[in-house]
Amino acid sequence: MYMDPLADQMMLQFNGVSVLKKANIYFDGKCISRLVLFQDGSRATLGVLFPSKLNFDTKRRETMEIVAGSCRVRMSGSDEWSTYEAGERFVVPENSSFEIEVQEPTEYVCHYH
Amino acid sequence: MYMDPLADQMMLQFNGVSVLKKANIYFDGKCISRLVLFQDGSRATLGVLFPSKLNFDTKRRETMEIVAGSCRVRMSGSDEWSTYEAGERFVVPENSSFEIEVQEPTEYVCHYH
Repeated sequence: MYMDPLADQMMLQFNGVSVLKKANIYFDGKCISRLVLFQDGSRATLGVLFPSKLNFDTKRRETMEIVAGSCRVRMSGSDEWSTYEAGERFVVPENSSFEIEVQEPTEYVCHYH
Repeated sequence: MYMDPLADQMMLQFNGVSVLKKANIYFDGKCISRLVLFQDGSRATLGVLFPSKLNFDTKRRETMEIVAGSCRVRMSGSDEWSTYEAGERFVVPENSSFEIEVQEPTEYVCHYH
């Protein structure tokens, strides 16, 4: 029985996945992320953000699930900042970008669609 | 066919594992680690260390596999510092401790025996 990765959202862990040993370290260590590969071929990254204001581009549509901490997010083309906390998520369109600001270590799962 | 986690060492990823969504952040962000659970019940953590000198205690014997970067290590009770680079590993006895110093972001897999 295979679970939809997003359905795992309430769960504390992903099961039956592959995880890369090598992490991705961006923005001088303000963002550390690790790729997880699901059985159905989909992907997600498990990330940690340290206090900073960062800009991310997207190729594919992404669902950002906040696991710990909180963040303010501004989508490209918008002047509005929205706040998201642990347990909440937001969707970023494909071929877009978003600004994210954190004041405390904040953890996320980024699901790529 | 199940692979021994250490045999995976040359491999770039662990397959068929569980990974916790929540990371562990220690020493004010100088150490970020994430727990991986293997099918045979064994565990490992995937970690990132940022430039610092840190001391870790061990309960169980551990094999520290360096994935990226390099580190200097001093086992408790020894005055000797040894250097380990990506692809190398060292073993820390149970109920012991070690000091580890990194000058650059360094990544490891810690296998718990």
